[in-house]
Amino acid sequence: MSSMNSHTLAYLEDHGHGIRVPVTEIELENSPDGSANPPLTVYRTAGPGSDPVVGLEPFRSAWIEGREDTEAYAGRSRNLLDDGRSAIRRGEASAEWKGAKPVPRRALEGRRVTQMHYARQGLITEEMRFVALRENCDVELVRSELAAGRAIIPNNINHPESEPMIIGKAFLVKINANIGNSAVTSSIAEEVDKLQWATQWGADTVMDLSTGDDIHTTREWILRNSPVPIGTVPIYQALEKVNGEADKLTWEIFRDTVIEQCEQGVDYMTIHAGVLLRYVPLTAERVTGIVSRGGSIMAGWCLAHHRENFLYTHFDELCEIFAQYDVAFSLGDGLRPGSTADANDAAQFAELDTLAELTKRAWEYDVQVMVEGPGHIPFHLVRENVERQQELCDGAPFYTLGPLVTDVAPGYDHITSAIGATEIARYGTAMLCYVTPKEHLGLPNKDDVKTGVITYKIAAHAADLAKGHPGANERDDALSKARFEFRWRDQFALSLDPVTAEEFHDETLPAEPAKTAHFCSMCGPKFCSMRISQDIRDQFGGTTEQAIIAGMEEKSAQFRESGGKVYLPEPSLSKP
Amino acid sequence: MSSMNSHTLAYLEDHGHGIRVPVTEIELENSPDGSANPPLTVYRTAGPGSDPVVGLEPFRSAWIEGREDTEAYAGRSRNLLDDGRSAIRRGEASAEWKGAKPVPRRALEGRRVTQMHYARQGLITEEMRFVALRENCDVELVRSELAAGRAIIPNNINHPESEPMIIGKAFLVKINANIGNSAVTSSIAEEVDKLQWATQWGADTVMDLSTGDDIHTTREWILRNSPVPIGTVPIYQALEKVNGEADKLTWEIFRDTVIEQCEQGVDYMTIHAGVLLRYVPLTAERVTGIVSRGGSIMAGWCLAHHRENFLYTHFDELCEIFAQYDVAFSLGDGLRPGSTADANDAAQFAELDTLAELTKRAWEYDVQVMVEGPGHIPFHLVRENVERQQELCDGAPFYTLGPLVTDVAPGYDHITSAIGATEIARYGTAMLCYVTPKEHLGLPNKDDVKTGVITYKIAAHAADLAKGHPGANERDDALSKARFEFRWRDQFALSLDPVTAEEFHDETLPAEPAKTAHFCSMCGPKFCSMRISQDIRDQFGGTTEQAIIAGMEEKSAQFRESGGKVYLPEPSLSKP
Repeated sequence: MSSMNSHTLAYLEDHGHGIRVPVTEIELENSPDGSANPPLTVYRTAGPGSDPVVGLEPFRSAWIEGREDTEAYAGRSRNLLDDGRSAIRRGEASAEWKGAKPVPRRALEGRRVTQMHYARQGLITEEMRFVALRENCDVELVRSELAAGRAIIPNNINHPESEPMIIGKAFLVKINANIGNSAVTSSIAEEVDKLQWATQWGADTVMDLSTGDDIHTTREWILRNSPVPIGTVPIYQALEKVNGEADKLTWEIFRDTVIEQCEQGVDYMTIHAGVLLRYVPLTAERVTGIVSRGGSIMAGWCLAHHRENFLYTHFDELCEIFAQYDVAFSLGDGLRPGSTADANDAAQFAELDTLAELTKRAWEYDVQVMVEGPGHIPFHLVRENVERQQELCDGAPFYTLGPLVTDVAPGYDHITSAIGATEIARYGTAMLCYVTPKEHLGLPNKDDVKTGVITYKIAAHAADLAKGHPGANERDDALSKARFEFRWRDQFALSLDPVTAEEFHDETLPAEPAKTAHFCSMCGPKFCSMRISQDIRDQFGGTTEQAIIAGMEEKSAQFRESGGKVYLPEPSLSKP
Repeated sequence: MSSMNSHTLAYLEDHGHGIRVPVTEIELENSPDGSANPPLTVYRTAGPGSDPVVGLEPFRSAWIEGREDTEAYAGRSRNLLDDGRSAIRRGEASAEWKGAKPVPRRALEGRRVTQMHYARQGLITEEMRFVALRENCDVELVRSELAAGRAIIPNNINHPESEPMIIGKAFLVKINANIGNSAVTSSIAEEVDKLQWATQWGADTVMDLSTGDDIHTTREWILRNSPVPIGTVPIYQALEKVNGEADKLTWEIFRDTVIEQCEQGVDYMTIHAGVLLRYVPLTAERVTGIVSRGGSIMAGWCLAHHRENFLYTHFDELCEIFAQYDVAFSLGDGLRPGSTADANDAAQFAELDTLAELTKRAWEYDVQVMVEGPGHIPFHLVRENVERQQELCDGAPFYTLGPLVTDVAPGYDHITSAIGATEIARYGTAMLCYVTPKEHLGLPNKDDVKTGVITYKIAAHAADLAKGHPGANERDDALSKARFEFRWRDQFALSLDPVTAEEFHDETLPAEPAKTAHFCSMCGPKFCSMRISQDIRDQFGGTTEQAIIAGMEEKSAQFRESGGKVYLPEPSLSKP
């Protein structure tokens, strides 16, 4: 397709430190006056084009081993229950990973190997340099934000295929795409395909939320093929191991599952440690109760056992484990509101107080932390969520699901939530979890994944613009200039989804000459305002010349001094 | 389809005044505990089901004639040029209107027949009563807002088929759908189809922006079939009459076109009277110049003739005409920014000053006015637009196009603009002009019209919620309650687009039993948080009972006093 021709894979290089950051260079045509338009450079992972059976190159291994604070070890042995009862019956997962099996690494005894730890020691890692090049910022900003806990780079030492990526309000707003099977639908191959598809369109991280068969093996395929950090919710797999009976869950089973996932390379894990026994009754009068899966599982466990949440009581042990692999916490908001009626209520804010306490406990272990947020929130209550979280959690990155600003549009919740997402990111949310059109209705397919990702790229970018993030407006300005100059191919190439933009244009004007025409089917040739606006400039000149015609004396004096001439033609504007 | 069965056309009635307001009653199933859920009532026009060849009943005629301040008259005679050169060649429009030809009416000599005029006289019209019933508010609120100019009811006395609808920030946020052909595409039948389709999905007004052949006749078909107010931009038709040569436009041709449209029944007209000669040079350095079609036409005219905009110099004459038919001004923002780079600039705000001046001049004639707004505005600059307009224009209703909060997503501009639309409506914009996925790329087809309408229903409703508009949350709460209780059919029926919601659900779980299942394919049965949350309530009881289990002494004391019992079952939560 012609519009895709101008996308070239290139690299930003930091030769001194051996860092290469993959980018797309979008080449642009000249302006009608012959002046050149510089190519626009945007980040893209090198990953999506990989062979899924082989996986990606573990390019971070050299950096990790070079720090000499980790060791390879035998790791936890394979247990078929990790893949569920069907795998036990079958004697294997339905599509075993055939690529290279990495040997797991962990920190040497007594060492902490987190990016936060290095940052606090004043060390600049390759990961930080990669991020600085990617974000076009000073590496000291990266280090200092990491050290303060205001940003995280989620990259488990056992996921050396991943390209470092920073989440924090001083940086570009990031987006996450959820994939994963459920008991009802989907296969391993489909999930790998969704991963590649999501990253191709710009997902900055992917969460594997599988709850069906082959959880372990699906995750292996995903991790070995993922150039972006992978997040999980380990309680889902733990629940599978106890046959779906929440009351049978134990700290020991959960701990074993966490280690399994640390060894595989999961970069961040959602832990619902803030769902305390005494908060559960606060949800009983809600319109929609508890809508977080992890939250409802833990709430049920607490009541059934009449005991405090084991994720809370064992939180320090989790910190010790995470510090050995550099896994980041994503502190789950198990009591987030599931309807606008339940927004900003006592249950939600009580849990947030606990998440703030846990954030600071994790920091004592140098473990990276982000905090999850809602959910369903009417538009005027959105801002309070991020401001409260930022204050209570001392600036730890906020990671929110939407929020959806109304409940009345199932089938369009990518839109209801993108509205809230833009608002919450504008005020400091660092990462947005996408919502697809299938939200509340079913599992997203590939089309839904793409729609969700593009919609959230829009929300994140709109927030970057609103925050005045340096350089964020470059792409908008380049596209608008191309639009005004009728460089249609450049418009397509610069858009977040060149394929759809070109298809929509071609629906009514498919011929190749229409790609250079000074109009489109929207207004037709005579009514194209931009064409008329260009004609005005061609005929009457720029500001000064137009000002003279308009009889604006001040401007015309300026013009006379500069020795200019006024061209006053016969009226013949816009004759078709 | 099962979900559509529960939508019933009903009427709210004001028997004393002979007013019937059509509504949809959405019938709901009982809750699992057997309690009834009252039907939810939402406004819908009675129009979309009409026979397009016959048109709608002119039910307002009796009200209009009953006021005895208008007269029927011969009207301007048919001129084939009204339909363009093809019609002249052919001797008729391509599909002449075959239904009844209404006799035009106008005000008796010296009378003003606008709703603003009546409101200022302290008169309560049937139109005001209709609106009060529709909005579920006091009719005095309607009258006083109209009298103050803070709201308008656009309904030309020659469009008696239209159901009265109020636009003002004290009322529900309204949305407009643009339809109309261009020189490149579309037929009369397609446009009537789009009109019916747009109103079916909830457009509150429709603008016919045709610029191709058969403009007059297309509009006749649309007006005779439209239950909602119809807006136009008469400069488009005037330009057709001078063969597309903007410099040939004259006040006389324009005036004649306006009267033609007044007699047909157009309810509001966009008039670009704020594009003053001296403002044009302010656009010369913009990234995207002038992007309003009317704006660029008038800017070119001003420069070519070295004279002031004739819409400005003849504005009082326009007011006199509009007062005879009750046509409302939609003061066009011809210099609105067409890119985020050009937002809130000198040209835009200079024009707004003039629009404020014109608003007050129109009010001297008791002519209803709304003011149009941008365009492309980064998110953080959106609020300033509406607050400035409200202040300068003394609260005259603001009617905005989006605004789009980023330029980088052609193909998704319904989304980029819905984000800005929600923000601007939250702070007082009264009507939102939809943007479809085809914006910047081509003319919207039927699917695009639906997507645009639903997306803008979302934005308008989200803003109503954010403003705390009385009763706005009823639909959200009803839907969320249905969701929590797994009343799938009610969820579909309550959603803005029941068809899509049901289709998405059925993609993975199509069987009829799934409509009552306590899960969907998103999480599968074991992981459904709402199911687990319900199980918790079933097993452990409500707030007080849960509080006792949680060992919260205060609550449990309460419970004991009430003589309650605690049921502490064996742990067996969520066993599948």
